[in-house]
Amino acid sequence: NSWLTLRTHLFCFVWQIAMIILFGVFIRYDEESDTHWVETKAHDNITSDIENDFYFRYPSFQDVHVMIFVGFGFLMTFLKRYSFGAVGFNFLIASFGLQWALLMQGWFHSLDPQTGKIFIGVESLINADFCVAGCLIAYGAVLGKVSPVQLLVMTLFGVTLFAVEEYIILNLLHARDAGGSMVIHTFGGYYGLAISRVLYRPNLHQSKRMQGSVYHSDTFAMIGTLFLWMFWPSFNSAITDHGDGQHRAVINTYLCLASTVLTTVAISSLSQKTGKLDMVHIQNSTLAGGVALGTAAEFMISPYGALIVGFFCGIISTMGYIFISPFLEKTLKIQDTCGIHNLHAMPGVIGGIVGAITAAAASESVYGKQGLINTFDFTGDFKDRTVLTQGGYQAAGMCVSIVFGVVGGAIVGSILKLPIWGDPADENCFDDEVYWEVREPTFHTSRTITPKSPMISSQLPDEEEEHQESIPPILEYNNHMIHKQQDL
Amino acid sequence: NSWLTLRTHLFCFVWQIAMIILFGVFIRYDEESDTHWVETKAHDNITSDIENDFYFRYPSFQDVHVMIFVGFGFLMTFLKRYSFGAVGFNFLIASFGLQWALLMQGWFHSLDPQTGKIFIGVESLINADFCVAGCLIAYGAVLGKVSPVQLLVMTLFGVTLFAVEEYIILNLLHARDAGGSMVIHTFGGYYGLAISRVLYRPNLHQSKRMQGSVYHSDTFAMIGTLFLWMFWPSFNSAITDHGDGQHRAVINTYLCLASTVLTTVAISSLSQKTGKLDMVHIQNSTLAGGVALGTAAEFMISPYGALIVGFFCGIISTMGYIFISPFLEKTLKIQDTCGIHNLHAMPGVIGGIVGAITAAAASESVYGKQGLINTFDFTGDFKDRTVLTQGGYQAAGMCVSIVFGVVGGAIVGSILKLPIWGDPADENCFDDEVYWEVREPTFHTSRTITPKSPMISSQLPDEEEEHQESIPPILEYNNHMIHKQQDL
Amino acid sequence: NSWLTLRTHLFCFVWQIAMIILFGVFIRYDEESDTHWVETKAHDNITSDIENDFYFRYPSFQDVHVMIFVGFGFLMTFLKRYSFGAVGFNFLIASFGLQWALLMQGWFHSLDPQTGKIFIGVESLINADFCVAGCLIAYGAVLGKVSPVQLLVMTLFGVTLFAVEEYIILNLLHARDAGGSMVIHTFGGYYGLAISRVLYRPNLHQSKRMQGSVYHSDTFAMIGTLFLWMFWPSFNSAITDHGDGQHRAVINTYLCLASTVLTTVAISSLSQKTGKLDMVHIQNSTLAGGVALGTAAEFMISPYGALIVGFFCGIISTMGYIFISPFLEKTLKIQDTCGIHNLHAMPGVIGGIVGAITAAAASESVYGKQGLINTFDFTGDFKDRTVLTQGGYQAAGMCVSIVFGVVGGAIVGSILKLPIWGDPADENCFDDEVYWEVREPTFHTSRTITPKSPMISSQLPDEEEEHQESIPPILEYNNHMIHKQQDL
Repeated sequence: NSWLTLRTHLFCFVWQIAMIILFGVFIRYDEESDTHWVETKAHDNITSDIENDFYFRYPSFQDVHVMIFVGFGFLMTFLKRYSFGAVGFNFLIASFGLQWALLMQGWFHSLDPQTGKIFIGVESLINADFCVAGCLIAYGAVLGKVSPVQLLVMTLFGVTLFAVEEYIILNLLHARDAGGSMVIHTFGGYYGLAISRVLYRPNLHQSKRMQGSVYHSDTFAMIGTLFLWMFWPSFNSAITDHGDGQHRAVINTYLCLASTVLTTVAISSLSQKTGKLDMVHIQNSTLAGGVALGTAAEFMISPYGALIVGFFCGIISTMGYIFISPFLEKTLKIQDTCGIHNLHAMPGVIGGIVGAITAAAASESVYGKQGLINTFDFTGDFKDRTVLTQGGYQAAGMCVSIVFGVVGGAIVGSILKLPIWGDPADENCFDDEVYWEVREPTFHTSRTITPKSPMISSQLPDEEEEHQESIPPILEYNNHMIHKQQDL
Repeated sequence: NSWLTLRTHLFCFVWQIAMIILFGVFIRYDEESDTHWVETKAHDNITSDIENDFYFRYPSFQDVHVMIFVGFGFLMTFLKRYSFGAVGFNFLIASFGLQWALLMQGWFHSLDPQTGKIFIGVESLINADFCVAGCLIAYGAVLGKVSPVQLLVMTLFGVTLFAVEEYIILNLLHARDAGGSMVIHTFGGYYGLAISRVLYRPNLHQSKRMQGSVYHSDTFAMIGTLFLWMFWPSFNSAITDHGDGQHRAVINTYLCLASTVLTTVAISSLSQKTGKLDMVHIQNSTLAGGVALGTAAEFMISPYGALIVGFFCGIISTMGYIFISPFLEKTLKIQDTCGIHNLHAMPGVIGGIVGAITAAAASESVYGKQGLINTFDFTGDFKDRTVLTQGGYQAAGMCVSIVFGVVGGAIVGSILKLPIWGDPADENCFDDEVYWEVREPTFHTSRTITPKSPMISSQLPDEEEEHQESIPPILEYNNHMIHKQQDL
Repeated sequence: NSWLTLRTHLFCFVWQIAMIILFGVFIRYDEESDTHWVETKAHDNITSDIENDFYFRYPSFQDVHVMIFVGFGFLMTFLKRYSFGAVGFNFLIASFGLQWALLMQGWFHSLDPQTGKIFIGVESLINADFCVAGCLIAYGAVLGKVSPVQLLVMTLFGVTLFAVEEYIILNLLHARDAGGSMVIHTFGGYYGLAISRVLYRPNLHQSKRMQGSVYHSDTFAMIGTLFLWMFWPSFNSAITDHGDGQHRAVINTYLCLASTVLTTVAISSLSQKTGKLDMVHIQNSTLAGGVALGTAAEFMISPYGALIVGFFCGIISTMGYIFISPFLEKTLKIQDTCGIHNLHAMPGVIGGIVGAITAAAASESVYGKQGLINTFDFTGDFKDRTVLTQGGYQAAGMCVSIVFGVVGGAIVGSILKLPIWGDPADENCFDDEVYWEVREPTFHTSRTITPKSPMISSQLPDEEEEHQESIPPILEYNNHMIHKQQDL
C-alpha cells in the first residue's frame, strides 16, 4: 500500500526479470557441462569422466556455498533480535548477487569474442559465490541499520565494482589471489566501512537496548563461525591449480587457522581484568588467519610460515576489537556492527602484504623451474616476469582493492543516504520487527516500530490477537505494565 | 507398562530384527565395494581406483544425507514446542526407512536373477535416502498430530509404495526423474496430504496455543532451510550421468534456487499490508525451485530456463501459503502442518510438467546425436523412442505418482485412523511433552498431557522435583499463579 | 592481573611459539602438495592430477573436520549454561591439539630418516583430527568441571599418549584400526574417565542447579549429534584403502548407525514408566554403532553383520546411560558429564572385539587372495601372518589402548589435581560465567562466581550497567527480588 513497500517487490521482480533476459542473451553451458562433452572427450582424448573439472572442484564449491549462506548468515545472528535479518537478508542478497556476478564476471573474464556468449561451469559458480562474499562482508558493517532495498542496491553496485577491480588485479596486473585476501576481503571490508561512514547515525545509542547478544544468539553465531573456520581451507583452494595447488592451499589454511585460535584466546583473556573470554573475539578473530592467507595459501609459504601468519593475525584482529573499533566509532564515525574492519579489512591488507613478500621471495630452488611457472602462471605475455616484479604487482593489486573499496563505498553510500530507501529510525535499528513478522512478544518499548522515511503501517492487529491467546495472563499483565511504565 | 508403550519398542525391535534377517538373505556388496574389486579392475582394464563410482558420487551422497537428517529435521523445528519431535522422529523414521528402502528398491530394480541377491554400492545408499525423503515429506503434513508408531507404519507403507511407483515410472515407462520431482516430491506430497485428510481433526484448535513459532525456533528452522537449499544441487545431480550430466544438473539447480529466493521475498512482502516478510515463506518457498527442477535438471533446459522455472515457483509456492493452505484446511479439511502442498506437491507437479515439455522439446541440434541418446537413455528396448513420445511418457509418469500418492495415502490413512496407535489428544497436539521427557517448565495448562487412546501416566514427579531446585522463588510463584488462573 | 589469568595467555603463547619453531625444524610439504609434484608426476608416469591423494581423501577430511569442531562441540552444548564452554573450549583444544598431533604422529610414523623431516599431506591432516578426537572424547567426561588451562594440559599429554599407543598398535602389533575403535575411542574414553576419577568432586551436587538441559540447549546438541551421525561413514573410511576399502567402510558404517537408532529408541522408551523418550539417549547412544564399527568397517563384515553390531550397540549404550552411569558415579566415584563411557569407552571395546573376531574369521574364499592381502596389509614383515594371528594381535591392540587410557589418565589426572590450575569451585561448575563474559542475566545465586583456587575478580560492573538499560523495569525488579530472597 505504501510505495516503499511496493519498492521491495518491484526491485526483486524487475531485477529477476532482467537477470532472465540477460542470461537468455549471454549465458550458456561450458563444454564440460554440455551434452556435447561426449564429443569433447573424444576430441581431446580424455579417457574418463573423472577428468571433468566438476570432480576437481565440486566438493570445494559446496563448502564455499555453505560458508556463504550458513557461515556468513549465522555469524551475524549474534544480535539478540536481528537473527531473521542476519540470516534472511544474507540469503536474499547472496541469491541476487550471484546471478549478477555470473554476468559481470563473465563479461570481464570469459566473454567469448566469437559467439558473444559466456560459458559457465562449476568454477564460474565458485567465482560467483566469491564475488557475493565481498558484498556480504560489507553487509556486516551496516547490519541492522539498513533496509532490504538498500542492501540490494549495495549488492548491485558491490558486485559491479568487484568484477572491475578483480579484472584489473587478476588480469591486467596479473596478480595471484586465489583466496581473495585483496579482491574479496580488502575490497569488501573497505567498501562496507566507507558505506557505514557515509550512513553515520549520531543517535544510534537510541537503539542501545537492541544491541549486544543474548546467550542463545551467541550460540547460533558459533554455527556461523565454525562453518566458516572449518571450510576456509576449501575457500582458499577452490580455484587454485589442480593437484598440488589445491592440496597445498588446504594445508596452509588449515594450519594458519589453528594458530589463530590460540592467539585469539590469549589476547581475549588478557583484555579483560577478570581474564574471562569474550565471545565476540572467539566468533570473529579466530577467522582472521584464513583471510590473511587468501593470497599466499597456494604459494610455498611452508607450514611454519602459515603458523606465523596465523599467530599475528589472531593478535592483531583481537586487538582491533578492543582498541581500533571504539576508535573508529568515536573518532572516524564509522559504526561497524560486526567489526569487519578487524575480521576482513585489516587481515585482508595483511594478506596482500604477505602475498607480495612471499611472491617476491619465491625461488627456483624452492619451487622448481616448472613449479614456479605454474604457481605464478608465468606464461604468455608474462613469461619473462621475475618474482620481484610479481611481488610489486601483488602490492599494486593491494592498493587497487583498497581504492575501489573506499571510493566505491563512498559513492554508493551517498546514493544510499537519499531519504527514499525506507531505512529504520535510529531507535528501531537492530530490530527484526521493522521488516519481519515476529510472532513472539519482545520487551520492546511501545513506540511504533517503523522505517524512518516513507511510513508503513505499524499497527500489528494479527500479532496482538495471537498474543492474547498464547500468553498466560500473568505474563500478559506484566507485559502491559512494562509498556505503561515505559510510556511514562 | 501400558501395551501402547510396549508397542513402540516392539515395532522397533521386531522390524530391526526382520531387517537383519532380510539383509542376511538378500544384501551383498557390489563389485566396487567388495575386496574382489582388485580383480574387477584387472579384468575391466581399469587403471586407477579413482574410477570407482565411490569417487563420482560420495560427496553428493553426503550432501543428500545432510539434507535428509539435518535439512528435513531442522526445517520442521519451527513449532515452538515440537523441536524434539521434529528432529528426533525424523531421525527415527529415516533410519528405519533407509533399511527397508534398500530392500524394496533392490527387489524391484537390481535383484540379480542368477544369485537372488541385491548388490549395493554408494548409488544404492543415495537411492535409499531419496526414498526416505518421500516419507519425510509426508511427515511434514502430519507433524505434531501423530504418534511415533504411526510414523513408523506410515514409513513402512510409504517406502513400499515408493519402490513400486518408482519401478513403474523409471523402468516401465522409462521416464527420467533424477532429482525426483515426480517420484519423490509429488508422490510424497500427495501421500502426506491424503493421510492428513483421513486423519482430519475438527477440534485441532484446542491446541492452538502450541501452534506457531517462537523467535529461536524460527532461527533453528533456518538451519534446515539453508542446508536443504545449499545442497539441492547435489540432490538433483547425485544419480545423474557421470561427467556433464552431474555438472549440468548442479548449474541448473543452483540458478533455479537463486531465482526462487527473489520472487519468494517479493510475494511474501506483497502479501502483508505492512510489507513485512514472513519467515514461513522464507523457510519453505525458497526451496520450491529445487523441487520443480528435479526432473529437468539434467536436461539442456539452459541457464535462463532454470531461472524462469525458479521465478514462477517462488511466486506459486508463496501464493500457496497465503491462499491455498487456508482453502485446503477449511474446504477440503486437509490440515497440512508444514505446508507440504506448497513446498513439495505443487512444485513437484510443476517439475513433472517442466520435465515433460523439456523432454518433448529436445533436439539433436541442441543435445548432439550421442548427447540425446545419453541424456534420455535411448538404448536397448527404447532405442527408437522419439523425444515427443518421451515427453508423453514423462507426463504419464507424473500421473502415476499422483495416483500412488492419493490412493496410497488414503488407504494408509485409514489404517492409521484405527484407535490403537496412541496418537495425541486434540489439545495436546504439537507438544513434545506427550512423547518426550522435557526437563524445562513450559507455560502449558495443568491439564494432563497424554496420548488420546491407551493411557500413559502423566504424573511427572522427577520434573517437579527439579523445578523446585532450579527455579528462583519469584518465578516459581508466578508459575503457580498461572496454573491456578488457568485451572479456573 | 592474577597469575592464574596470566597462565591462560602464557600457555597459549608459549605453546604456539613452540609449535612454530618445531614446525620450522621438522614439517615440510609431502610430494603431492609440493610444487615439485609436476616432476613427481612425470617421474612416476601419473597421467592426471586427479590421481593426487587430495582427490581421494579431501571430501572425507572435511566431513571429519566438521565432526571434530561442530559435531563434538555442539554435542556438548546440552547443558543449560555451558554452551560457550562446550563449543568454545572444544574449538581451543582441538586447534592446539592438531598442531601437536602433526608433530607427534610425524615423529612416530613418518619421520624421514635421511632428511629428519616430516612430510605432510591431506592424510596427515585427517590423522591429526583423529588424534584430537581422542582428547575431545576425554573432555566429555570432565565437561564443566575443569579450567581451560587444565584442558590444554590434558590435550598436550593426551596427544602424546595417543601417538605412542597408536604407534604400538598400528605399527608394532600391525593391527588394523582405520576408524579408531581402539586407538581413538577406547583410549580417549578411558583416558577421560580416569582423569575424572582422580578429579572426583564429592560436593558436585552444589552446582545441581546448573546441571541438566533446557529445551533449546537440547536442540543445539542435536546439531552435534546429527553431524556426527551423518559423517561417521566418512570418519571410518577417511584413511582406509583407496577404492573398495573406502567404499565398503562407508556402506558398513551407514547401515550400522541406522540400526543403532532403532534399538536406542526402543530401549529409551522401555526405560521410562511413561514410555517417553529421553533426549540424552537420542543424542548419544545413536552414535555408538559408528564407534563400534571403527575397526571392522573396512573388513568384509557384510551388510547384515553391520546391522547386528548396530543392533546390540544401541541396546548396550542406552542401558549404560540408565544403569552403568549411576553405578560409576556412586560406586566408582567417576563423574562422567557426557556419559562417554556409554558412547565411546564401552562401544570402543566392543569395536575392538568385533574387529578381532572379524579378522580371525576372514578367509580367502570371502576376500579373494589379493583382497585378503590388501585388507590386512599382509606384506613385508607381515606377509606370512595368518588371519588367526591377526585376530590375536587385534585383541592385543585392544588391551594396549585400555592400559594407555587408564594409566595415562590416572597420571595426568594427578597432575591436574594440583591446586594451581584455576578450576571452578564445586558450586560454580557447569557455569559459563566463570570463564566467559556472559551478557545476559541468569537466575544464578548472588554468590560470587569464581574459579576455586587463585582468585580472579568477580565484580562485573560492565554487565550490571548494561542490564539497567536493556531490561524493562518490572523484570529488573523481579531480578532484584530474586537476589534478595536468595541472599537471605
